[in-house]
Amino acid sequence: MNTDTANIQPDVDLAKELFDKLREATFDGVGITRDTFGEGEQKAHDIVTAAAKGLGLEIETDFAGNLYLRLPGADRKAKQLLLGSHLDSVPQGGNYDGAAGVLAGLAVVAGLKRAGVTPARDITVIVVRGEESAWFPYSYIGSRCALGLIPPEVVDEVKRSDSGVSLGEQMRKGGWDPDAVKAGRKHVTPENTAGYIEVHIEQGPVLLSEGLPVAVVTGVRGSSRRRSAKIAGEYSHSGAVPRKYRKDAAAAFAEFAYRVDRRWIEIDEAGGDLVVTFCTLGTNPKRHAFSIIPGEVSFSLDMRSTSRETLDEMDAFIAKLVPELEEKRGVTFDLGPYTDTPAPGMDDGLRKGLARAAESAGVKFREMASGGGHDAVAFNQAGIPAAMLFVRNEHGSHNPDEHMEIADFAEVCRVLMTYVRAEA
Amino acid sequence: MNTDTANIQPDVDLAKELFDKLREATFDGVGITRDTFGEGEQKAHDIVTAAAKGLGLEIETDFAGNLYLRLPGADRKAKQLLLGSHLDSVPQGGNYDGAAGVLAGLAVVAGLKRAGVTPARDITVIVVRGEESAWFPYSYIGSRCALGLIPPEVVDEVKRSDSGVSLGEQMRKGGWDPDAVKAGRKHVTPENTAGYIEVHIEQGPVLLSEGLPVAVVTGVRGSSRRRSAKIAGEYSHSGAVPRKYRKDAAAAFAEFAYRVDRRWIEIDEAGGDLVVTFCTLGTNPKRHAFSIIPGEVSFSLDMRSTSRETLDEMDAFIAKLVPELEEKRGVTFDLGPYTDTPAPGMDDGLRKGLARAAESAGVKFREMASGGGHDAVAFNQAGIPAAMLFVRNEHGSHNPDEHMEIADFAEVCRVLMTYVRAEA
Repeated sequence: MNTDTANIQPDVDLAKELFDKLREATFDGVGITRDTFGEGEQKAHDIVTAAAKGLGLEIETDFAGNLYLRLPGADRKAKQLLLGSHLDSVPQGGNYDGAAGVLAGLAVVAGLKRAGVTPARDITVIVVRGEESAWFPYSYIGSRCALGLIPPEVVDEVKRSDSGVSLGEQMRKGGWDPDAVKAGRKHVTPENTAGYIEVHIEQGPVLLSEGLPVAVVTGVRGSSRRRSAKIAGEYSHSGAVPRKYRKDAAAAFAEFAYRVDRRWIEIDEAGGDLVVTFCTLGTNPKRHAFSIIPGEVSFSLDMRSTSRETLDEMDAFIAKLVPELEEKRGVTFDLGPYTDTPAPGMDDGLRKGLARAAESAGVKFREMASGGGHDAVAFNQAGIPAAMLFVRNEHGSHNPDEHMEIADFAEVCRVLMTYVRAEA
Repeated sequence: MNTDTANIQPDVDLAKELFDKLREATFDGVGITRDTFGEGEQKAHDIVTAAAKGLGLEIETDFAGNLYLRLPGADRKAKQLLLGSHLDSVPQGGNYDGAAGVLAGLAVVAGLKRAGVTPARDITVIVVRGEESAWFPYSYIGSRCALGLIPPEVVDEVKRSDSGVSLGEQMRKGGWDPDAVKAGRKHVTPENTAGYIEVHIEQGPVLLSEGLPVAVVTGVRGSSRRRSAKIAGEYSHSGAVPRKYRKDAAAAFAEFAYRVDRRWIEIDEAGGDLVVTFCTLGTNPKRHAFSIIPGEVSFSLDMRSTSRETLDEMDAFIAKLVPELEEKRGVTFDLGPYTDTPAPGMDDGLRKGLARAAESAGVKFREMASGGGHDAVAFNQAGIPAAMLFVRNEHGSHNPDEHMEIADFAEVCRVLMTYVRAEA
């Protein structure tokens, strides 16, 4: 960084003001609603655009509506550093998921700008559209558009879950160019971008439980998923059928879930990274009844890990367990469609740089995996070094109660500023 | 038995004819519907009454509409022997549950009558009303009326599940006397009745699996029941919350159900009588979703055994398991209302007599517990010796597919006839 100015602070007051404006503009009576490529998201983009104008930043919009708020560097040919996240939210969500990353970037850039600092390279706040797949059931739409990673058919086939409008139509309504998306045009590439750093609220309770404001993310958990699995047994009289004649789907489910859980405990105790969740389960409400042995149980299974090997190991464990239980309990498993995602690690250089920055800024932190996917995954996929910082947050995310203290936000902004000053 | 006539056969042809008439009169398009104290049951009573008239039996009806078809014995002062069961059915049920016991009694009495035999004591076919609690949610209504065992408040409080009409009103509509029921009047007592023998289709697959036509019932399984239990945990992000911070209701359910099942296996292997069923279970459809750790699981638990001690042991096991899992998994169990029923053994003398009769008739049989409750339980409760014979049956009971072969029915009638001739 091309400056001698000491002790430049991120503009947390500006961020605080913008958090309030965002809440005011997009509160729906219950929570925050900023719909992907829709009115709510646009209101949020307008608010940060106005702030960027006030700061005198360069403002650019790409063909998919992603926004770039740029503080020019001394060498305009050098690769830019991106700081950012998304501004859309789930329906009735919270004010911080996404917005924290955009406003942390803006706080840092505003601090530099106001101090009259010219960085060595462009520092660009990227405001990504469409990260929440609650609206269009596809991951990282905005960043994947910018990176040229959307398969062409997605543009017409993926429909908004409430209105049924296709992604392409919705983009066109907003004034963007879905044909460029289909053509795979790229606005952000490894050639013009040095890295992507995303601040995000933690979606779990780890930092809160451990009394830490900040974490450096090691990687994003990949997944092995069974969204609609079933066990079929045989309905019969719960009093009159002895154990050996039963085909009890509930008992089979219990053993299945318990033994998967036991395997998880072993991996957990050996220090492996893994989370396993039977998110939904149930006997069939149309046929189940008291006094009847249940002939059917449906369930879903979500397994995630930062290690693809661990997920493969669990998949193999399940593949062996299923026929054993079918034989033992006279039932039939149908695990349904299988989907998986890779487990991208965060960029080593960026991670280490952020850890050094936190140490040098005196901010207490830990390293941890991200359970949910974030835009950083898309940048990683495009070959751009990506990293993340988590801020302590209460009540999880995707709900009106998500709660981040501004004091914690100030800490993560200090880490980011320290990183940018030391390394960018 | 006061007769020298050898080789008197039960009138299975009459029974077969009556099974057909019952089916014809009460087939509802899908299954058999003979509603308790209603039209369907009345049609069935009319059919067997007409047959009894044809046979020249004494016909009596008590204040609750139970029917007594009596072959007078030599000593009219001696205690009568009752053979019978009920004629009502569940909605869209089968033709044999209940009717088999009535028609087996009638086949035996018809055989004796046609052979000109006068038994030592009155042999009475009892046709009980209202055994199926699908209509009025109360067990063994008809036999309990005859035995003076209905608590007075039940008469007005228990309502028919489809129409909402109270038991008392419904009885009055049929011409019976609910006030006598309230007053606890008794028509059948230990003083006027030597015993009650009930033939019933087996409601499970044991005789079918083991290739046997008949069983002598050892006892009726009592129960320990939890019809609406719940486990409360905490909803959170399935990717972002590490194992140690989870309060996963589904994982807690799986361990609970699995360990209850393990305990059952131990009891089963030690030769104990027990069946355990989680009849219904599910996460909350209003809140559950993929990617969310479930914060709530509901379930029901039906445990039955011929040994009250075994049920008490299971209850104690659960009482110890619940706090262990609450502690270990950060969840709260609410087991909901607890109901239990005793586990009445069948009368030793009658049981042994029926076993001797089967042997002497050359009918292959086994002894086994009854999983469901039957009118025999009410007679046992009133201090009247009670016993049961099961007939092989396919597809369980309470459904249109229940299926008893007439050849098996003939075998059970031979056992009953042999018993009556040898011991009554």
